[in-house]
Amino acid sequence: MKTELFTVLPVHEARAKMALYLPADLRRSERRSLLDCIGRRLAQPVLAKENVPGFPRSTVDGYAVRARDTFGASEGSPAYLLVKGEVKMGAGAGLEAGVGEAVQVATGAMLPPGADAVVMVEHTEPAGAEGIEITRPVGVGDNVILADEDIKTGEEIFPHNHLLRPQDLGFLAAVGGLELEVYVPLRLGIISTGDELVPPVERPGPGQVRDVNSYSLFGLALSYGGEPVLYGLVKDDFRKLKATLARAHAETDLVLISGGSSVGARDLTAQALAELGEPGLVFHGLAARPGKPTLGAVRDGKPVFGLPGHPAAAMIAFDLLVAPLLKYGSYQKTSPGLPPLPALVSRSLSSAPGREDFIRVKLRREEGKLWADPVLGKSGLLSPMVQGDGFFRIPLEKEGVAAGAPVEVYLFGTDYVL
Amino acid sequence: MKTELFTVLPVHEARAKMALYLPADLRRSERRSLLDCIGRRLAQPVLAKENVPGFPRSTVDGYAVRARDTFGASEGSPAYLLVKGEVKMGAGAGLEAGVGEAVQVATGAMLPPGADAVVMVEHTEPAGAEGIEITRPVGVGDNVILADEDIKTGEEIFPHNHLLRPQDLGFLAAVGGLELEVYVPLRLGIISTGDELVPPVERPGPGQVRDVNSYSLFGLALSYGGEPVLYGLVKDDFRKLKATLARAHAETDLVLISGGSSVGARDLTAQALAELGEPGLVFHGLAARPGKPTLGAVRDGKPVFGLPGHPAAAMIAFDLLVAPLLKYGSYQKTSPGLPPLPALVSRSLSSAPGREDFIRVKLRREEGKLWADPVLGKSGLLSPMVQGDGFFRIPLEKEGVAAGAPVEVYLFGTDYVL
Repeated sequence: MKTELFTVLPVHEARAKMALYLPADLRRSERRSLLDCIGRRLAQPVLAKENVPGFPRSTVDGYAVRARDTFGASEGSPAYLLVKGEVKMGAGAGLEAGVGEAVQVATGAMLPPGADAVVMVEHTEPAGAEGIEITRPVGVGDNVILADEDIKTGEEIFPHNHLLRPQDLGFLAAVGGLELEVYVPLRLGIISTGDELVPPVERPGPGQVRDVNSYSLFGLALSYGGEPVLYGLVKDDFRKLKATLARAHAETDLVLISGGSSVGARDLTAQALAELGEPGLVFHGLAARPGKPTLGAVRDGKPVFGLPGHPAAAMIAFDLLVAPLLKYGSYQKTSPGLPPLPALVSRSLSSAPGREDFIRVKLRREEGKLWADPVLGKSGLLSPMVQGDGFFRIPLEKEGVAAGAPVEVYLFGTDYVL
Repeated sequence: MKTELFTVLPVHEARAKMALYLPADLRRSERRSLLDCIGRRLAQPVLAKENVPGFPRSTVDGYAVRARDTFGASEGSPAYLLVKGEVKMGAGAGLEAGVGEAVQVATGAMLPPGADAVVMVEHTEPAGAEGIEITRPVGVGDNVILADEDIKTGEEIFPHNHLLRPQDLGFLAAVGGLELEVYVPLRLGIISTGDELVPPVERPGPGQVRDVNSYSLFGLALSYGGEPVLYGLVKDDFRKLKATLARAHAETDLVLISGGSSVGARDLTAQALAELGEPGLVFHGLAARPGKPTLGAVRDGKPVFGLPGHPAAAMIAFDLLVAPLLKYGSYQKTSPGLPPLPALVSRSLSSAPGREDFIRVKLRREEGKLWADPVLGKSGLLSPMVQGDGFFRIPLEKEGVAAGAPVEVYLFGTDYVL
């Protein structure tokens, strides 16, 4: 077969070779309102422009005091302090807490000048009309948040490329970060090929199956922050494929052609990529299973990939080669997120040295241990692609894993860099 | 304090009491096109209307044969078969593979009648103008997917309430499920209260801080599939709070009031919920840390929650009481997703019996073990809310955990039912 004549590259070499022809970052950025930024990535680090909370603040309901005035206080021998007044919520302190004085504060209220701690109301008793007895001592700083204890002016709140999560919105609101410079989602053109495919609205005839990849790649693109554009199904017709590819290349930032599973369809895709213009085809085949019949090409700094026809293989190839570009605009790794999860593989699997294997697994907890159950199935089955929580990798040089061996599981849908 | 007079309920009792006054499911459903369904949940199970692939299919490039004709074949003594022709991709088989005959097939092509296995092209040699030699035997079913091997007619593809993920789109496309009955996101009204708060666009004056909860709750609501509506900041003014609550209650499915941190603000919220109408206030305080000053109320079958003012506490209370409603429309648990992850806690923590503690942690892998490092910080700090990968629970009856003890970590952003 023609496709076998080309050199097959390991994933990291395929990436490095693509990177030679790609810009340092495929993305452009824009300013957006905070509420529209979930799922976007920061094009600049966010620095704090001011201290938070910005003033010393009580963390309890009680009395602001000078800690020294409470030293030695106990139930049997309470300290007596004169209550000078109350700090209102959301207002400046006004009052000062002098020696032997206490000022009433609610949780979140500003600490009055002079005070360096707060006694919880539970550890006080009223004493006369204007005083309190304190039955437990406090140390300096007890029940107080300092003016810059939460966030310091100039501190980096989130780094460049940080993915904005729901919980980040509140934190950014706290520092007044209501507009952010974030990356614009890359537009992904998706083309399916294969004489055996029919659009999903049609009922397949004998020997035909529905186009699956357009839809799973659409979903994956969205989940990694891309903006997918479907160019539909092109039957194995070279002129039509070339024309559709040219249109998708002009209109989007990155194009995917998921090949039919036949050799003919794969060859058509390879030829279309080779004729794309300089540098054209960059690699032809991945040393990975699944994912071997994957092609990479570049024109005008835009990547074009030929993905395997098998849906599960196309998804893995997408994770390896397309997802990093959607997330980071390049193959440069950024700060690691969640570590891969240590688990024990529940059955032995063999692998060929010189090939990376990506094994889909379902996680199971048993007797305090996390087991990774491989989701196996004949090549080309669809059902495995919707099963499993993540996958682990058998590295290039290894010949397999034994049942009970430790593996590192990458969960689907989390922010990893493989 | 007034709020202390009420009974504080454990989380599961608070849920059960709320459920008495809520409909069996808060949600309604609608039909949507497949591409618009990511992140939605199925209002009905999806059943397969036909077999997939629908015909027996080759998983390799090679020759469809009767397996029996290859028995005993080897390099030294190959089996000879007459090649009868080729099955075209996407077409019916046409030909029949008779005894002693082979039919050429590409990966994905239909198996011709008579054939029960496929010999890989690598295990064949051309022999004369019309024949091949087979150097390895195949068994019945080798390199073949049966007509109903992937999906059987009538099989449940996804259950009721299944969250539609990117990889599901392709699978649904394969069975022609291009329109789905999915739940409509619940609309969540979000109100913030507290005299010390200012809208994030303003620069806080002395004793003031920006409203954080409106934004973090907005983000959380979206991440669990809700549709948040911000009703802004209501200072501690009872009449205004009541009017805003009435409007939010009329316009949305579920209302959240995140209280100021002061007792006064909490009392105002409690009073507004009590005056909401029958049954009004359902529970007043959670036996949880953080999350104690949480209130639950119902009117006209719509839940209203008073959430703690502390942002990190408000988020936990949201996860415990609001997230299940957004995900499942009720507190009924559905099928479990990912199991909680077994990890070792890296330091000792104490807890009061009769209270559930929710400990935010960062996961760290060291020597093949997964460690959960508690993200600690004074109550009321904002920074911990953007740290950590998930949390673990110290149950009601336990007095704490010792350093090195096993804990179960729930990752943020995954489909758990706590």
